[in-house]
Amino acid sequence: MKKTYLLTPGPTPLPESVISVFAQPIVHHRTSQFEGIFENVKNKLKTVFQTKQEVLILAATGTGAMDATVTNLFSKGDKVITVNGGKFGDRWTKMSKQYGLEPVEVFLERGAALNLKDLEKVIADNKDAKAILFQASETSTGVRMPTQEICQLTQKNNMLSICDAITGCGVFNLPMDEWGIDVLIAGSQKAFMIPPGLAFISLSEKAWKTTESSNLPHFYFDLTKERKSMGKNQSAWTPAVSLIQGLQESLRLIEEEGLENVFARHARLAKATRAAVTALGLEVLCKDSPSDSVTAIKVPSSIENGKMIPKLMKDKYGVTIAGGQDELAGKIFRVSHFGYIEQFDITTGISCLEIVLNELGHKVEFGIGVGAALRSLHGDH
Amino acid sequence: MKKTYLLTPGPTPLPESVISVFAQPIVHHRTSQFEGIFENVKNKLKTVFQTKQEVLILAATGTGAMDATVTNLFSKGDKVITVNGGKFGDRWTKMSKQYGLEPVEVFLERGAALNLKDLEKVIADNKDAKAILFQASETSTGVRMPTQEICQLTQKNNMLSICDAITGCGVFNLPMDEWGIDVLIAGSQKAFMIPPGLAFISLSEKAWKTTESSNLPHFYFDLTKERKSMGKNQSAWTPAVSLIQGLQESLRLIEEEGLENVFARHARLAKATRAAVTALGLEVLCKDSPSDSVTAIKVPSSIENGKMIPKLMKDKYGVTIAGGQDELAGKIFRVSHFGYIEQFDITTGISCLEIVLNELGHKVEFGIGVGAALRSLHGDH
Repeated sequence: MKKTYLLTPGPTPLPESVISVFAQPIVHHRTSQFEGIFENVKNKLKTVFQTKQEVLILAATGTGAMDATVTNLFSKGDKVITVNGGKFGDRWTKMSKQYGLEPVEVFLERGAALNLKDLEKVIADNKDAKAILFQASETSTGVRMPTQEICQLTQKNNMLSICDAITGCGVFNLPMDEWGIDVLIAGSQKAFMIPPGLAFISLSEKAWKTTESSNLPHFYFDLTKERKSMGKNQSAWTPAVSLIQGLQESLRLIEEEGLENVFARHARLAKATRAAVTALGLEVLCKDSPSDSVTAIKVPSSIENGKMIPKLMKDKYGVTIAGGQDELAGKIFRVSHFGYIEQFDITTGISCLEIVLNELGHKVEFGIGVGAALRSLHGDH
Repeated sequence: MKKTYLLTPGPTPLPESVISVFAQPIVHHRTSQFEGIFENVKNKLKTVFQTKQEVLILAATGTGAMDATVTNLFSKGDKVITVNGGKFGDRWTKMSKQYGLEPVEVFLERGAALNLKDLEKVIADNKDAKAILFQASETSTGVRMPTQEICQLTQKNNMLSICDAITGCGVFNLPMDEWGIDVLIAGSQKAFMIPPGLAFISLSEKAWKTTESSNLPHFYFDLTKERKSMGKNQSAWTPAVSLIQGLQESLRLIEEEGLENVFARHARLAKATRAAVTALGLEVLCKDSPSDSVTAIKVPSSIENGKMIPKLMKDKYGVTIAGGQDELAGKIFRVSHFGYIEQFDITTGISCLEIVLNELGHKVEFGIGVGAALRSLHGDH
């Protein structure tokens, strides 16, 4: 018998009550029953996005909402500033180029926090840029970006702030309206605790205004059409019904816990994870601005094949964490701590890590990491 | 207590064994476990598509695959022929225009079959058209289009045949390779018996060749990238994991029944439905070429508010059928007979229709419709 545990930055584990929703017969989407679900969901999404704007629901994964942003807000030849702090920042650059925009890239060393002075300099040199495209949390490196400060800069310079918050929204505080985030993007399989297949996106008034002058063609990803449909508690195309039914339940759980308590839990678990790996003599990739969503940890030099850490944890012990991606493959591994995750998920993950480090020849005293996590959570004992 | 029944052309009811898959914990997509599921699914999809080509799986609904077709195969200014036999044919025209193509439309009276002579004339006048875009089955009118004959014409005229088979694939015989369908599109919530959220699309060699010269920008819907990922049993972006897990089970059910038997069942149920409504004195909208996927039935003149038929059936008796769309709203209603549907679903639907017709003042003798359906299925008794 083997139980399994999921500590990855998406998909995150499904709450049992969400699973039970998926075990129901399907309902048709053009019915008052579904419209009731949709209305409930759209209102609760506003609470999580902390906005008065509609939060649109797309049948796509997060990249689809990024695509929708570019094709609905910009025109060929538009200059934009992209923050490339990892795989997902890189995606903003690639996508902008693909659609004929002219991205000016702020490239960060992998694991480094964004230096606002560097960004200010790029802004000063590119006053004609229409927007800054960035991640609230760069999932590939575990770096949290200074969203509020970026928004202050975009407002001062009459640019739009386009925030991919796929592993940020619902994980930590990102008050869209208060901070003036112009486009906020999220994904279902992250803090929303349902399977992948839905993307969420909300636009400020300023961003909606910008859509009017965009001339990039689009059809499936038509945000204006989606907004109109939302008024009728429908989506423009066939909605991913079962996922939206699950979302109703997961949003109920978030409401029940309270958004601030959700954020606090994620922060607590992130801190405990960092304390644990540090106690084990390992190094967190991001020193200055680690994200509460996922902790990226450097593979110790004593372990030659870094990919063996997540592999052994999963194959032998049933604990799935994430490895490094692209240039970081084999160099880091990542433990996630958001969504349907609580303290014993973290102690499980760290326990398993302790076992596997020893098996791979990196000797650690059993309990050192877990002990540090528990102290972080419950005080010195 | 009220039991519910679903007789709509998507979503179709979920088989119990598919539902039980959705009640499982989620798996991570970058794992050998998921890759095993993916490999299994991609092989079985080829069987249903009757092709040697890869069948790509997109996290989107069917319209997303239509969008992907236009942006991956064509360039601005390309001339195409669209067959507009209803709401979905109309979508081909609108979408083509949106992306700067030049559609030449063959417009059909609602419910009329495609006259091949008319199509041949349009082809003769537009020899420079790159493709014919059509539906295998126009869901809004219940008309089956002559896919094989259209493919013969495209081949003779060096055009591509682009077949939206969202309510055709897996419903009736559409052998992609044998007939030379260049692009075949399907959707998860139809004959595939899982919830909406996945679109399937397969391209012939000729269609793949065409993608090389397309210059319309696209990012999320990048078929070449998806094909490459498929080779590694992955999708380009995060896959809609749970839906693909469900798909594995529904494809197993299709394999177990046998594709030909599935087609025969749909044909048998469609014929019984037509026999039943005809016996009730109602008129099938499409006389010449009715589809095996859905039967569109004219509201009898004795019933003033045609929308009351589906409304009463659903609200009072729990039987969900579809109404008419756009210009057909209130004029027709539609009973579907594909997916996880068997004879007693049809007798239920017809029984309920008999009740509701009487309640709405259109008097019919109870059992007349059901009797005709049963005779159609089991011979004269």
